[in-house]
Amino acid sequence: MNKVAIIGVGHTKFGVLENKDLLDLLSEASLQALEDSNTDDKDFDSVYVGAMSPNAFNNLSGIASALVDRIGLIPAAADHIKNGPASGGSAVKAGFQAIASGMSELVLVVGGEKMTHITTPGYITSNVATLTHPDAERRHGVSLPSFAGMLTRIYLEKYEAKLEWISDIAIKNHKNGALNPKAHFQRSIEDFMKNAIQKGKGNWSSIYEFLEDDNANPIIADPLRLFHICPISDGAAALILCNADVAKTYCDTPIVISGIGQATDTHIIFEREEITTLKALRICSNQAYKMAKKNPEEMDVAELHDAFEILEAIQSEDIGFFKKGEGAKAAHEGLTEIGGKIPINPSGGLKARGHPLGATGVAQVVELVWQLRGEAGERQVDGAKSGITCNFGGFGNNIISILVERV
Amino acid sequence: MNKVAIIGVGHTKFGVLENKDLLDLLSEASLQALEDSNTDDKDFDSVYVGAMSPNAFNNLSGIASALVDRIGLIPAAADHIKNGPASGGSAVKAGFQAIASGMSELVLVVGGEKMTHITTPGYITSNVATLTHPDAERRHGVSLPSFAGMLTRIYLEKYEAKLEWISDIAIKNHKNGALNPKAHFQRSIEDFMKNAIQKGKGNWSSIYEFLEDDNANPIIADPLRLFHICPISDGAAALILCNADVAKTYCDTPIVISGIGQATDTHIIFEREEITTLKALRICSNQAYKMAKKNPEEMDVAELHDAFEILEAIQSEDIGFFKKGEGAKAAHEGLTEIGGKIPINPSGGLKARGHPLGATGVAQVVELVWQLRGEAGERQVDGAKSGITCNFGGFGNNIISILVERV
Repeated sequence: MNKVAIIGVGHTKFGVLENKDLLDLLSEASLQALEDSNTDDKDFDSVYVGAMSPNAFNNLSGIASALVDRIGLIPAAADHIKNGPASGGSAVKAGFQAIASGMSELVLVVGGEKMTHITTPGYITSNVATLTHPDAERRHGVSLPSFAGMLTRIYLEKYEAKLEWISDIAIKNHKNGALNPKAHFQRSIEDFMKNAIQKGKGNWSSIYEFLEDDNANPIIADPLRLFHICPISDGAAALILCNADVAKTYCDTPIVISGIGQATDTHIIFEREEITTLKALRICSNQAYKMAKKNPEEMDVAELHDAFEILEAIQSEDIGFFKKGEGAKAAHEGLTEIGGKIPINPSGGLKARGHPLGATGVAQVVELVWQLRGEAGERQVDGAKSGITCNFGGFGNNIISILVERV
Repeated sequence: MNKVAIIGVGHTKFGVLENKDLLDLLSEASLQALEDSNTDDKDFDSVYVGAMSPNAFNNLSGIASALVDRIGLIPAAADHIKNGPASGGSAVKAGFQAIASGMSELVLVVGGEKMTHITTPGYITSNVATLTHPDAERRHGVSLPSFAGMLTRIYLEKYEAKLEWISDIAIKNHKNGALNPKAHFQRSIEDFMKNAIQKGKGNWSSIYEFLEDDNANPIIADPLRLFHICPISDGAAALILCNADVAKTYCDTPIVISGIGQATDTHIIFEREEITTLKALRICSNQAYKMAKKNPEEMDVAELHDAFEILEAIQSEDIGFFKKGEGAKAAHEGLTEIGGKIPINPSGGLKARGHPLGATGVAQVVELVWQLRGEAGERQVDGAKSGITCNFGGFGNNIISILVERV
């Protein structure tokens, strides 16, 4: 199997991006990555696009074919990879296999979504809910936020954890996002609170009091409130991949994808062995560690899929950083902050960087590349040499883990 | 690069399949392929699903994740590959790369679509039209049938060809489809005509006269009539892939995928160098021939993408069987019939086998496997040892060609 290196990255600003359509965003991230990689356009032989719902959100099909034309990469092969909110991770894996097999020499992987122009409750939540089981789940009215609310209740009770610890994850991620110029929210929650106080909307003695205020932080899916849940965002992120043997001809600091795993779990959540364990993550992260001959203790940084803040807690356990039931407490104790035992989501995560569905799995890898290259600016994890991601499809029934290293 | 073999195939009946949903069809084809391959379910590590629009047609996302659960392949990795009407071919390529890279040892590829429950003009044609360029094409009202009509006019004029020759392609494909128990239409056009005569709907002295009758064969996109255009169908087809080195442990007659190519062309058709040449097919079929160290003259059988019968004529040229402008004439002369110089679409093609979008690219390969194994029954091409496909995405802006051989 050929070794695969990342030789270029691109990342649009995430957020509410008006006057840009999906192809604008995919093109912007792709062209940034092309420039970052010092490659010659003519050399590309494959393009993989990760996006969850361009047909539903943007009335577009064939986006991969459209993109290669738009950015001048014809006749490169082009495919669109879908795996719900893990479409980006799946696109990275597809690109990896194109290089690893020897079928391609130079591959562009780009993930993106344009969704803020659509009504959230009326359209996006119901479209995302098409990921749930149509008979056992969806017809009873559940959506992904409602699952996350139920999961939080079970976790808090089972492991005697506190909701404040889940809030601590959001607080950390907003703090990190404030240091990320590409993030959707570049503001700490403290800053949101101070702003609300200034505007005379209330007076709170602590962030926790602010976060418990039904007006300042309304309940979305009890006990989860607005600040425990990622936003709807627009954005795109891109990677250029090549055979690691020739990576140094393109750039000085290639980052190697040394492990990739992907695994599925039951579609119906009720059927899982243990509701608070992401078995698919356990399997796929072990695949990635095994392939890279690494273990969780050797990771310097991680990008996890905190679409709901409870997920970061649980993922930090199942990816091997903390014992079962100790992920939320670890976040509370600061172990996952930049400078902590294992910094998680220095980018701000889905909570603060934002979550343009198909972009996320690629953006996670882009953040790790910046961290491993030492280009992460104020949010740099000192001396980071290896990192891992968790990109979460459906509600945990299809998870991808990507392990990258500086060589 | 590991060599890749096909060790099992599955294929539902194509047609108007009531009381079956998309997952039923994908499962049925998959389980047939599993049984055909003598594999043990537990060994599977990857599943690739090709489908164009399950979100729009079936209100489903995450179909690959749902399928692995449905057919008991958890925790196999699962991804959904989209490339318009070439989604099936792209899924085969993704599965090929999974084995070729060594990332997977046993892969299920399945393509399918469930679409006959939806209004054709009001919904399907407009959804498929999202493949066209939104500004340069779609907003002016063009759809894929209208493009095919215009292309036919240009071809007939440029190469002094006759519309009857395009009809001959439909006549041949219906004749072949009549021999295929999985086909949507298992009837010759002569049979349709005799039936109409019996019902007192008219009296025609020849098939051509029948096909020129505005009532019997209405114009869809001048000069193309109903019988020049493939139907809307439901169905699914599946393949099991493994490393060719171990293929004989599963089956006696493994078929090897010895070449795969994929290439793109301009999104806007007007921008192409020559409207009657499928440049993407020229490039991708040459990639496939080169990879397999074969040439067009060595092919014994081909499955081409006759969504509109004009396309079979043009594809038979650009894939290297006939000189430019001679494809329709070759069909007229019988060179593409079973027993002819190069039998094309012994399955009945999209015209008679039917065209459940995402299923087609996989079904083409399934037909070639049957042909190369000598299992094609009444439509068997004698002694077929190698064959090639053309699976056509968008309106020719993303084409895949797969070359298979008996070893």
